Amino acid sequence: MPITANNSSRKSWLDVSNDSDFPIQNIPFGVFLTKDDVITIGTRIGDYAIDLGALQQLNYFDGIELTDDMFMQDTLNDFISDGKKTWRLVRNRIADIFDERNPQLRDNASHREIVIFKMDEVEMQLPVMIGDYTDFYSSKEHATNVGKMFRDPENALLPNWLHIPVGYHGRSSTIIPSGISIHRPMGQTLPNGQKTPVFGPSQLIDFELETAFITTDANIMGENIPVHEAADYIFGMVLMNDWSARDIQKWEYVPLGPFLAKNFATAISPWIVTMDALEPFKTKGPKQEPMPLPYLQIKGKQAYDIHLEVSIEPENAAPTVVSRSNAKYLYWSMSQQLAHHASNGCRINSGDMMGSGTISGPTPESFGSMLELTWGGKNPIKMSDGTERRFINDGDTVSIKGWCENEKVRIGFGEVCNKLLPPFSGK
Amino acid sequence: MPITANNSSRKSWLDVSNDSDFPIQNIPFGVFLTKDDVITIGTRIGDYAIDLGALQQLNYFDGIELTDDMFMQDTLNDFISDGKKTWRLVRNRIADIFDERNPQLRDNASHREIVIFKMDEVEMQLPVMIGDYTDFYSSKEHATNVGKMFRDPENALLPNWLHIPVGYHGRSSTIIPSGISIHRPMGQTLPNGQKTPVFGPSQLIDFELETAFITTDANIMGENIPVHEAADYIFGMVLMNDWSARDIQKWEYVPLGPFLAKNFATAISPWIVTMDALEPFKTKGPKQEPMPLPYLQIKGKQAYDIHLEVSIEPENAAPTVVSRSNAKYLYWSMSQQLAHHASNGCRINSGDMMGSGTISGPTPESFGSMLELTWGGKNPIKMSDGTERRFINDGDTVSIKGWCENEKVRIGFGEVCNKLLPPFSGK
Repeated sequence: MPITANNSSRKSWLDVSNDSDFPIQNIPFGVFLTKDDVITIGTRIGDYAIDLGALQQLNYFDGIELTDDMFMQDTLNDFISDGKKTWRLVRNRIADIFDERNPQLRDNASHREIVIFKMDEVEMQLPVMIGDYTDFYSSKEHATNVGKMFRDPENALLPNWLHIPVGYHGRSSTIIPSGISIHRPMGQTLPNGQKTPVFGPSQLIDFELETAFITTDANIMGENIPVHEAADYIFGMVLMNDWSARDIQKWEYVPLGPFLAKNFATAISPWIVTMDALEPFKTKGPKQEPMPLPYLQIKGKQAYDIHLEVSIEPENAAPTVVSRSNAKYLYWSMSQQLAHHASNGCRINSGDMMGSGTISGPTPESFGSMLELTWGGKNPIKMSDGTERRFINDGDTVSIKGWCENEKVRIGFGEVCNKLLPPFSGK
Repeated sequence: MPITANNSSRKSWLDVSNDSDFPIQNIPFGVFLTKDDVITIGTRIGDYAIDLGALQQLNYFDGIELTDDMFMQDTLNDFISDGKKTWRLVRNRIADIFDERNPQLRDNASHREIVIFKMDEVEMQLPVMIGDYTDFYSSKEHATNVGKMFRDPENALLPNWLHIPVGYHGRSSTIIPSGISIHRPMGQTLPNGQKTPVFGPSQLIDFELETAFITTDANIMGENIPVHEAADYIFGMVLMNDWSARDIQKWEYVPLGPFLAKNFATAISPWIVTMDALEPFKTKGPKQEPMPLPYLQIKGKQAYDIHLEVSIEPENAAPTVVSRSNAKYLYWSMSQQLAHHASNGCRINSGDMMGSGTISGPTPESFGSMLELTWGGKNPIKMSDGTERRFINDGDTVSIKGWCENEKVRIGFGEVCNKLLPPFSGK
């Protein structure tokens, strides 16, 4: 089925500014709460949120096989379960409905009033009920930087790294959408030079610049996913900030991996941009050497050219961009990550989320965490108000933006943006 | 509110053999499918499964505030969300209904026919929708044994172990109830003495003898759970087999912890035994030295005297008991585990599951995995048919049993029992 929604010459009858992340070629999926307290599945064009539940009730999806209340739900899981063919039919239909040449909704004022909201009138929610959340560790530059700082600078990359898309399980219950503030976590840390740990507020709060992908039901338990089929089970992508407490992490992570250093908050951008919309931005990833084992071998363009930018905004000052990176630097592709994840028969469900791991590029400005940007706090970064940051301060807002761009079209993710509050007062 | 359901002199009008795990003093909660394909929440007395949905429809729970369809659901999550007071009211009421002196249901043949099934007529399901699954590592003997084998025999216990109830996140999508067979997983391993990994069936499949507890909604994100309140948020316990692939684990686990070595299958016993039923079996755990940090300090009996037994049954031979252990050997208590888990503000929901970690006791017969029992495969164990086991063979069924016992009553968990099949043929 052709992805007609991607037609770059198409224009919408809705206003879309030239620098918008959400032209009619994007058509992402999300969940929002209207000012009337109704939760619905929606999409976005320009600065307009579009109620897909209302569109369905008004029969705009006639001819596409959908359950009656498909879009009148508070998560996208059921829609994602319907599979790629349905995703395409719906996205193509939405493009048709909002095409400037189509009068059906354009010229129906009473329908428009029910269907279209301004973005500032709605409150974005988590788009999916995330059953299981996995975080990979797929940036070679990030793994190398961390290895240099914490382990052996001469052998920074561990022996398994070039053979395995290393990953681990994260916590679903603390995944939040952009806009929610978080508290600086308390935790156990071992002060430098001491032998006994202390308990108190983490002193080293960091962001991690990541992308994440959302899967559909892919296999039964015991069954693998061949690497060449993996892309069929990936619905779309979001931006992700894997908030981290470096001092807690350093003390707790041996031998079973990071736990409380990570599970106090993981934030994502609220619109899932489909893999179909990102298709024009596929590019070659880094050369993989040594050659991966056969179950991970896949040819062709497997990376995505997604520009990424992180800024820190102190409480009473303008934001400062601290990192400019790109998803194309990732060594392991999403198809390889998913094929590896299911290679032991692990069941993959609709709404599972898999993070890329911190995306660091080859240059110091493109590192994806304060840990790397300030090299463990040694080289602080200057903010717009003259203050310095080694890590994140209380009151700071961290924003990650991401977008793809070619001469014809810009497809963006919007942002994931959260403020760090002081520690919870405690019970 | 008194826990009258625990009255040890009470007898049921249903037949219960003397060695049953499920006397009227137990009253566990589970979910089952009847032969008419109806899913319901139920309890068990002796060898009878009791349909609590039917009991509710017949008004046996009148006077207890419950939503209309509380027990006509396919998971216990909503019931668990109702909290300890409701759990007690319902459990006390069930004890009353089945008390030999109560004629209400006993003498009503048409009601009995709707409510009571023989255990072999029903099919047990997962009792809860597990949102997040965490596995701890709380047996000092297990952590020491593993440290001796894989790291430094002189410093087997890592420096953080005596200060932190070490834990990590697991995968919810592959948690299965007793009775489901599993496939030997494929995976990457590094053959001894080699520098390049291979991909193939794991050669070192192991069980891990664990218990697990199920939580109720305990906090909002950012909020901690004081260690003295933690017990209020624990609904009950199950037996757990944390199936493991040791060769995959060894190669993949640095630095982010075990991943595919664990997430191919985690099995639990289907009846959740409530903490109320286990109350008479509280006992003192091991002395904690050094003293834990204040947020983990709690006095009194915090361990549970639960006898545990693992057996291996080859395809055409009688089962052989390979381990006899006890949950009281665990160094960190469940209250400490839960308080630690939420100490950074991590949100705990109804239906979350937390495993104890492999329970090894002080003697070699009480070790909780083949890795320890055979000391890395060096000392194979003889089966009833004369064959030997270093790890688990295709066709073997591994069963874990668990029960508490005093002079008055026996409260048991039944078993968790799964057969290992050859690798899935692959796609």
